[in-house]
Amino acid sequence: MRKLILYIACSLDGYIAKPNDDLSFLDKVQVEGMDYGYHDFIATVDTIIMGRRTYDWVVNEVGSFPDKERDIYIITRTAREFLGNIQFYTEDVGALIRQLKEKDGKNIFCDGGAQLVNSLMKEKLFDELIISIVPVLLGDGTKLFQDGRPERDLELISSTSYDSGLVQLRYKAVGQ
Amino acid sequence: MRKLILYIACSLDGYIAKPNDDLSFLDKVQVEGMDYGYHDFIATVDTIIMGRRTYDWVVNEVGSFPDKERDIYIITRTAREFLGNIQFYTEDVGALIRQLKEKDGKNIFCDGGAQLVNSLMKEKLFDELIISIVPVLLGDGTKLFQDGRPERDLELISSTSYDSGLVQLRYKAVGQ
Repeated sequence: MRKLILYIACSLDGYIAKPNDDLSFLDKVQVEGMDYGYHDFIATVDTIIMGRRTYDWVVNEVGSFPDKERDIYIITRTAREFLGNIQFYTEDVGALIRQLKEKDGKNIFCDGGAQLVNSLMKEKLFDELIISIVPVLLGDGTKLFQDGRPERDLELISSTSYDSGLVQLRYKAVGQ
Repeated sequence: MRKLILYIACSLDGYIAKPNDDLSFLDKVQVEGMDYGYHDFIATVDTIIMGRRTYDWVVNEVGSFPDKERDIYIITRTAREFLGNIQFYTEDVGALIRQLKEKDGKNIFCDGGAQLVNSLMKEKLFDELIISIVPVLLGDGTKLFQDGRPERDLELISSTSYDSGLVQLRYKAVGQ
């Protein structure tokens, strides 16, 4: 069955952004020619789901959403027309994931942000977590993990450390 | 110079305890004969500093504080007499660490809890962090890292993964 996978980077103290959506800490681990396995990962994915604020951030940075091939779901409260391969989704996100998992296809990549990640965790919908820990304490910002989720057992699939100091941890969620 | 080192375990989502100081998640990585480097680490230490609640927890579990050899500082608001090698310290903890660092000696081990860790981080007093990530999402409890600390650059010293799924990350704090 296709899996819902979280693939995200955070600081050692668990922030995915500094205040004001500042992602400049990611520059610390930018190394020419090093994608930390992203190319191999994205090849296993045909569907991407992300929160509306994360989407706006990407569009603002890049000019438009760069991926024209995959099915993209933007989770939002405000209805909008389809935009090419991008669907703005206002219904229940848990139901969406359960539907997608029942269809054939490649994996589903959750690209954040924190609000969406925590909603999906509350429903125990993630099958795998790939978390890249950037060697910095940010001290403040948007926490990847918020309180009020159910406990979930994990199994370590792999741990890979890179010269930049980034450590990428892969886990499989186990049990119910 | 002697270093202040944080040596602590947390869940992937950054909790050092579940609600009500429940540490049972550590049982997941309890393996006969495996101490995750603690013996080697503690051999480099002659001074331990911890918060009063953490101390009470240990005494409650074990019956008395098990380490009779090292200098132990319990950070508390309530003055108490020395108890053998244990000093109850009510003054400024940052000043204490700066004083200790100026004296000769082995390393200083900060054993938690979260309140003490975050106080020491606010003053950028840690020289090394050794964080053991237990493969579980706890979902709620006491977060190791609280908001409102200054940013601090880290350098990865090592990353070691164990059969139990525990990953131990060692970092050096760099710069000011």
